[in-house]
Amino acid sequence: MKKIINNPDLVVEEMLYGLAVSNPQLAYDPEARVISRKEKKAKVGLVSGGGSGHEPAHAGYVGTGMLDAAVAGNVFASPPPDRVLKGIEAAQSGQGVLLIIKNYSGDTMNFGMAAELARDGGTEVAEVIVKDDVAVPDSTYSTGRRGVAGTVFVHKIAGAAAEEGLALSDVSRVAQKTADNVRSFGISLSSCILPAVGKPGFSLAEDEIELGMGIHGEPGVERVKTLPAAKVAEVMVDKILADLDYQGSECAAIVNGCGGTPLMELYILAGEVDKLLKAKGVNPIRYYVGQYMTSLEMAGASLSLLRLDAELKQFLFAPADTPAFKEKG
Amino acid sequence: MKKIINNPDLVVEEMLYGLAVSNPQLAYDPEARVISRKEKKAKVGLVSGGGSGHEPAHAGYVGTGMLDAAVAGNVFASPPPDRVLKGIEAAQSGQGVLLIIKNYSGDTMNFGMAAELARDGGTEVAEVIVKDDVAVPDSTYSTGRRGVAGTVFVHKIAGAAAEEGLALSDVSRVAQKTADNVRSFGISLSSCILPAVGKPGFSLAEDEIELGMGIHGEPGVERVKTLPAAKVAEVMVDKILADLDYQGSECAAIVNGCGGTPLMELYILAGEVDKLLKAKGVNPIRYYVGQYMTSLEMAGASLSLLRLDAELKQFLFAPADTPAFKEKG
Repeated sequence: MKKIINNPDLVVEEMLYGLAVSNPQLAYDPEARVISRKEKKAKVGLVSGGGSGHEPAHAGYVGTGMLDAAVAGNVFASPPPDRVLKGIEAAQSGQGVLLIIKNYSGDTMNFGMAAELARDGGTEVAEVIVKDDVAVPDSTYSTGRRGVAGTVFVHKIAGAAAEEGLALSDVSRVAQKTADNVRSFGISLSSCILPAVGKPGFSLAEDEIELGMGIHGEPGVERVKTLPAAKVAEVMVDKILADLDYQGSECAAIVNGCGGTPLMELYILAGEVDKLLKAKGVNPIRYYVGQYMTSLEMAGASLSLLRLDAELKQFLFAPADTPAFKEKG
Repeated sequence: MKKIINNPDLVVEEMLYGLAVSNPQLAYDPEARVISRKEKKAKVGLVSGGGSGHEPAHAGYVGTGMLDAAVAGNVFASPPPDRVLKGIEAAQSGQGVLLIIKNYSGDTMNFGMAAELARDGGTEVAEVIVKDDVAVPDSTYSTGRRGVAGTVFVHKIAGAAAEEGLALSDVSRVAQKTADNVRSFGISLSSCILPAVGKPGFSLAEDEIELGMGIHGEPGVERVKTLPAAKVAEVMVDKILADLDYQGSECAAIVNGCGGTPLMELYILAGEVDKLLKAKGVNPIRYYVGQYMTSLEMAGASLSLLRLDAELKQFLFAPADTPAFKEKG
């Protein structure tokens, strides 16, 4: 295993330390492994998080116009409820807190328990569960669809709604609407290596890729011979458009790298996706191309497609200033 | 070779196409492989470029507050003078053009010839050559030090100076001052694969890393057994501080990923760099952590350290809005 790390058991703490020193506008609670905004504002608080290894998700999305706090678990493992509660406390300013949860059993359970604890303490807490991955109906770690890179759209749009002063019920409604209108599909070219394990979680042959791979290396739907970028785009677009009617709608797309795939390939993929969408009567008005939700050093990519209406569009294009997502507005 | 591409011989065109469709504020000239701003402004024009495979460099830095045009060569190969001339033409608005050139023989020759051609045509052209890599005095592709990720600081600072309306002589002076005050050092954990070649350019053993590796896989200074992140940081910081006196100065740092190294590792490295700098009396006031100058899917990282004075600081923190570098200002 070749990684630029010190101790495999300390990668999360050391990563958050590095994120915090390189972003002095963020506060870091090393006990709870919570990254939050230093400057508090009276508004609905937004909290997300989950297992580490998906950087910049989620701590990289803490800042103006997006999250108030992110709670980091161990690599690919949900943070326990008491630490999620610390995240809620860091985010709350008396106007309630929304939890944005990717649909994995550990996360829904632990964030759900933290929500209960916070409610017991008098904080109003709402939850939105993101299930954007159309690849598999259930998976190794989830009942129902998995939450993947489409979650970043929920951070952005709910974040803008909260920043504009909407009440918890409205921020929750907008977050749920975003989750309802986003679909994703990913493919993988190689495994990733968990630092504490030290070897690949699975192996793919030199000429093989996996369609529908999850962000923790969970099985997808099919292993096939390597495909050209145009075919990869076709699989992604077909799977997504078969699941939700985007025709005639404006949409925004995340062409996401899994960690080990360089930007050159993501741009080639984006070009192919764009041709297909336009040919199919979908109107992509904004692309985000880069690493938004990774799986350590896995090579691969995913496409997330958000169907927009006027409200979602307005919040998507509102200003944001976080380590990993900036929008001038 | 597993890559998300179509035709190995068309990766540059297809990548630029994808960049252009996902950034409609940019113009794309497919003949010349030039990406430029659609909205022109009367100001000094800034042009950079070079071999492809270093994405987001350089087309990802075209936009407000940074470059006006970027010229893309084939993978790891300089673009010919006639295409660089197209870049100069796309960037010029009658107030002269500055070329920001990484110090490789092909680039200095081709950009230099293009500058001559443009001058013959009546355009005032200045050149700044960036030689920030302290690893080796000369290299496979350069006489003198190589230009690497520190070049991004030159884009940013010269870009801000041009945007504020400074004359060509002043923009050149500020660009040269930036180049004079930035030093970089990189290490590599794996090779990259040129699409048209299809196999790794070199190989490193499973427990081996290369110190001082260039951004085209050119040899560095030493192959050693894998080192913990703290030691990697120490090598980088020591090499850089031995070359320029940063003591007592404010500085900005790019902790750059080479393409295949995930953000988790870059943040761990940033944390270690920060501890060392502070212990050595250097005052880092801004970090940029991510993929700024890559080598396809190479695993590895580099550190670039810019010594700041009041003028450089002001331009560094001025607004920028490009695909790969955004600053609220």
